[in-house]
Amino acid sequence: MGKMVLVFVLLSLVQVLAVDAVDRVKIWPMPKSVSHGHGSLYMNKDFELKTEGTKYNDASGILKDGFSRLLHVLQVAHVVDGNSSAADTSLLLQGLHVLVFSPDDELQYGIDESYKLSVPASGKPVFAHLEAQTVYGALHGLETFSQLCQFNFTTSVIEVPMVPWTVIDQPRFSYRGLLIDTSRHYLPLPVIKNVIDSMAFAKLNVMHWHIVDTQSFPLEIPSFPKLWDGAYSISERYTFADAAEIVSYAQRRGINVLAEIDVPGHALSWGIGYPSLWPSKECQQPLDVSNEFTFKVIDGILSDFSKVFKFRFIHLGGDEVDTSCWRVTPHVRKWLTKHRMNESQAYQYFVLRAQNIALSHGYELVNWEETFNNFGNKLSRKTVVHNWLGGGVAKLVVEAGLRCIVSNQDKWYLDHLDTTWQQFYMNEPLTNITNPEQQKLVIGGEVCMWGEHIDESDIEQTIWPRAAAAAERLWTSYNKLAKDPRQVTGRLAHFRCLLNQRGVAAAPLAGPGRVAPEEPGSCYSQ
Amino acid sequence: MGKMVLVFVLLSLVQVLAVDAVDRVKIWPMPKSVSHGHGSLYMNKDFELKTEGTKYNDASGILKDGFSRLLHVLQVAHVVDGNSSAADTSLLLQGLHVLVFSPDDELQYGIDESYKLSVPASGKPVFAHLEAQTVYGALHGLETFSQLCQFNFTTSVIEVPMVPWTVIDQPRFSYRGLLIDTSRHYLPLPVIKNVIDSMAFAKLNVMHWHIVDTQSFPLEIPSFPKLWDGAYSISERYTFADAAEIVSYAQRRGINVLAEIDVPGHALSWGIGYPSLWPSKECQQPLDVSNEFTFKVIDGILSDFSKVFKFRFIHLGGDEVDTSCWRVTPHVRKWLTKHRMNESQAYQYFVLRAQNIALSHGYELVNWEETFNNFGNKLSRKTVVHNWLGGGVAKLVVEAGLRCIVSNQDKWYLDHLDTTWQQFYMNEPLTNITNPEQQKLVIGGEVCMWGEHIDESDIEQTIWPRAAAAAERLWTSYNKLAKDPRQVTGRLAHFRCLLNQRGVAAAPLAGPGRVAPEEPGSCYSQ
Repeated sequence: MGKMVLVFVLLSLVQVLAVDAVDRVKIWPMPKSVSHGHGSLYMNKDFELKTEGTKYNDASGILKDGFSRLLHVLQVAHVVDGNSSAADTSLLLQGLHVLVFSPDDELQYGIDESYKLSVPASGKPVFAHLEAQTVYGALHGLETFSQLCQFNFTTSVIEVPMVPWTVIDQPRFSYRGLLIDTSRHYLPLPVIKNVIDSMAFAKLNVMHWHIVDTQSFPLEIPSFPKLWDGAYSISERYTFADAAEIVSYAQRRGINVLAEIDVPGHALSWGIGYPSLWPSKECQQPLDVSNEFTFKVIDGILSDFSKVFKFRFIHLGGDEVDTSCWRVTPHVRKWLTKHRMNESQAYQYFVLRAQNIALSHGYELVNWEETFNNFGNKLSRKTVVHNWLGGGVAKLVVEAGLRCIVSNQDKWYLDHLDTTWQQFYMNEPLTNITNPEQQKLVIGGEVCMWGEHIDESDIEQTIWPRAAAAAERLWTSYNKLAKDPRQVTGRLAHFRCLLNQRGVAAAPLAGPGRVAPEEPGSCYSQ
Repeated sequence: MGKMVLVFVLLSLVQVLAVDAVDRVKIWPMPKSVSHGHGSLYMNKDFELKTEGTKYNDASGILKDGFSRLLHVLQVAHVVDGNSSAADTSLLLQGLHVLVFSPDDELQYGIDESYKLSVPASGKPVFAHLEAQTVYGALHGLETFSQLCQFNFTTSVIEVPMVPWTVIDQPRFSYRGLLIDTSRHYLPLPVIKNVIDSMAFAKLNVMHWHIVDTQSFPLEIPSFPKLWDGAYSISERYTFADAAEIVSYAQRRGINVLAEIDVPGHALSWGIGYPSLWPSKECQQPLDVSNEFTFKVIDGILSDFSKVFKFRFIHLGGDEVDTSCWRVTPHVRKWLTKHRMNESQAYQYFVLRAQNIALSHGYELVNWEETFNNFGNKLSRKTVVHNWLGGGVAKLVVEAGLRCIVSNQDKWYLDHLDTTWQQFYMNEPLTNITNPEQQKLVIGGEVCMWGEHIDESDIEQTIWPRAAAAAERLWTSYNKLAKDPRQVTGRLAHFRCLLNQRGVAAAPLAGPGRVAPEEPGSCYSQ
C-alpha cells in the first residue's frame, strides 16, 4: 500500500507541476508560440511608443490610439506612482518599438493578423519589440503585451515579470465572430462600444450585427426613411451616422462589422413604415415575394450599407422562413401560380434574388444554413453558409465546396445559459473534416448573443467569460488547445478577472452562464 | 348603467391626463420646484461654460470637469453632427452661465447642495443660467440640465425641449448613501469609479465603503503593513494611494466617502497578518478585547484614515458581535474577570474605546444600531446610529437625542433581490417621527449593496434602478413625492433607460431586483 500511495503522490506532483508550468503563462487566448525567462523589468513612467523604421505612417492614428489604450488598461486598476526611475536603468523598460511592414490600414477579411513580440531581459536602453505585417496584427501584439504586465504592489510600478519573452503568434481561423442583436432589445451606442472593446481583449475580429428582426427596425436607412418607424420608440434608434461611428470604432480596434438583414423571414418590422412589404395587414411575414417594391427596398438598404459597411461580406439571413402567409394571401398566391412556383421555390427565388442584389453592390454573402439545406447547389459560389442548427452541416457545406462559419446553437449560443464555458471551449469547428482543402473552407466560427432576454443590464456577463472560451478555440493553434478544459480553468479565470479589472462585467466561471457569485470569495476561484 | 360607465370613463381620462402632465417632466429625482414652457432650443456645437462674475475660481477644475462630463453624457448616445449654426440664432443655446457663490470647494457633510437652473425660451445670445452656493450644488444643476436635453433624430443636434425652464432645487436629506462591500468580493477600481459616476446621476452623495470584514482585508494600512495579508490574493488589494484616488474621484463628483472598519465583530481577516488580534487560532473573532495591541491597531488604522478619508464621519460598525470566543478563550476570560466585566460589558467597553480613538482623530461617529440598542445612553453624543434591523429604531434614536441614518434591511438592502423598486420608493425615513426637532436628527438614509453574491459581474444591475427609487425618497421634498409608486413608473423607467444610454447596466423595473428582460421589447416598457 505504501508504494501505491507514493506513486499516487508522485503522479499528483507531476500533475501539479505540469499545470503550474502551463499556468505561469497567463495569456488568453494562448499564442502559437511562447517562451519566457525568470527576470523582471519595470516600466518607465514615460513608457514610449517608438516607430522608427516602420513602413506604416499611422496617418489615421490607429497604432497611436492602440498604444494609448494599452497604457490605459495597464494603469486603470491601481495608482501607478512608484519611482521607476530609481530602478537599475538596465532593468527599466523604456518603451515599445513597433514595426509594421504594410503601409495599408484597410481592415478586411483575411488580412495578416500575425505578430511577433519580444521583451528582452535587459539592455541599454531596454525596449520591447513588436513586429507585424499589418497594424491590426500589431494591435493583437499590444493586447498580448498588456497581458504580460502586472502591477507591483511593493513598488507601485508596472512590471513585466518572466522576461525575456518571445511570442510568435497568428490566428488559426480568420473569422472569429460575436453576434449582437439590436432588434429584440435596443443596445445604446456606448454598450456596443464596450462590447467591441472587450472583443479586442479576446482577439475576436468580427462583430456580426443582427440589426433588425421581427420585433424592431432601429436603424435609419436614408433610401427608405420610414423603415425605422419600426423602432420600439423614437429614442431607441440609430442614425446612419451612428452606424458609421460603430464601424469606425470597431475598425480602429481591428474588428470588422458584419451587417445583417434577415430576409425574407424575421422582417415583420419593415412593414411598420411600409405596409406594402407585408403580404397583408393580417399576415405580416415573410416579406411579400410578389411585390417588386420588396426588392427595391432591399436594394436601397444594401446600396446604403455599401457606403458604411465595408466588410467583404453581408449577411442576408434566410432562416426560419414560414411561407404560410404567401399561401393564404390571395395576391401572393396568384403570383405564385402565375410564376409556377410552389412556396419553397419562392423561398429559393427570394434568397437568390437578394443574393444577386448584394453581389451587385460588391458584397460576398453569408446566409443561415437553411438556405444551404434547402437549395445549397443553387446558392452563389460566393456564399458562406452560417451554421446554427446543430453540428454536422459544416462537413456537408465544405464537401459542396462552399465556405462555412460554425455557430451550432447547442454549443455556441450565448443565450443558452445552461451551456457552460467548458462546452464553449470544446466545440471544434473542424469536427469530422479531415481533408485539408476542405478544412480551409471553414473560415471560422461565431458565438451568438441573441437578444430576447438581453439588454444593457445583462449583456456583458452573458457574453463573458464564455465567449472567451470560444475565442481561444478560434485563435489558438489546434495542437496548443487543451484537450481537457480543466487544464485552462486557472488561465481563463485569470482572464475573467482581467476583464473585471478593465471594467467588463464578466461572470464567474462556475456553473452556467451569467451566474451570480455563489458565496464570498476571490475572483480567481469563483 | 350608462351613466356609471360614463363617470368611469371620465375618471379614467382625468387619471391619464394627470399622469401625462406629471410625466412630461422626466427629471429624476424630482426637483423641489419645476416649471417649463413649450418652446425648443438647440445646443450650439461649441456649447460653452461661462463663469463670469462667479466667486469660485475652480482652481482644482471641479466645475470644468463636471461640464466636460455633461457634454460627454449628452454626446455619448448618438453622433451629434447636425448643423446647429443653421438654426435661428435666437433659438441657439450658446452655453451655460454658472455662478457659484462660495469660493470654498471643501466637500463635507451638510454643505449647501441647492441650485437654481433656468433656461430661457429665446434671447440674443441665449444662455442657460445656473446658480449655486457651492460648486457641488452646481454639479447637481449640471446633472439636472443634462436630463432636460435630448437628441433630435431629425436634425442630429441636441435640443432642449419645453423651454423656458425654471428649476429651484435642494435635497430633503443631507445624507443620501449607498454602501459597497469590498470584503465579500473585491471590486476593482474602475468598478468603484463607475458606481460613483452612477451615484452622481441620481444625486446620491455618500459612498459608504465597507472596506473590510471577516472574509478579506483588501486595503493597505501603512501603519500596520501586514493587515492586507488578509486579502483574497495579492492582486485583490487596494494600495493606500488607490484609496486616496477613490476619495478624490468621488469628491470631484460631490460624493463623500464614509470609510468603515467594523469592530469588534466582522474582523476575522485582520488576524491573518496579526494573529494576536484573534482571541486564539481556534476562536478568531471578535477582535481580542483583552489585548492592548488591538486598540493600537485601530488607532493606527484611524490615524492613517484621517490622512485620506476627510469626511466628518467614520463608521465603526459594532453589529452582530458574538462574544463567545471571549468567554471560551482562557486569557480573555481571565482579563474579563480581572476587570469585572461580563461579555456584554466588554462589548460596550470595546465600542466606546474605539469611539474615543476615532474622536481623538477628529471624527464624528457612525455605529450600527446594536450599539444603540444595547447601551445607547453610553454612546458618544457625536454618534450617528445606523439603522439596519427593521423599521422603528429611528424614532427611538432621535427621541434619545442622537442622529440616525435609515437603512432598514426589509426595504433598503439591495442584496434582498425580492425587494421591489416600489418598496424602495415607499420607505419613509421619518415614519412615526412628527416632532420637527427630532425629524432633523434623521440625517438621511442609505441603500446597502452587501457583497456576498455581488462582484463586478452583477453589481450595477443589482444597485440600479432600485437605488434610484430610494434616491428620490431622500432628495425630493416630501410633498412632491408620489403617494403611489405607479405615478412615477414612467419617469423611473425613463431614468433607467438614461442610465443604460450612459453605459450603466441598470436592470428592468418589472419584477424583483436584477431580473433579465422577460421578453423582447422597449427599454421604456420593461
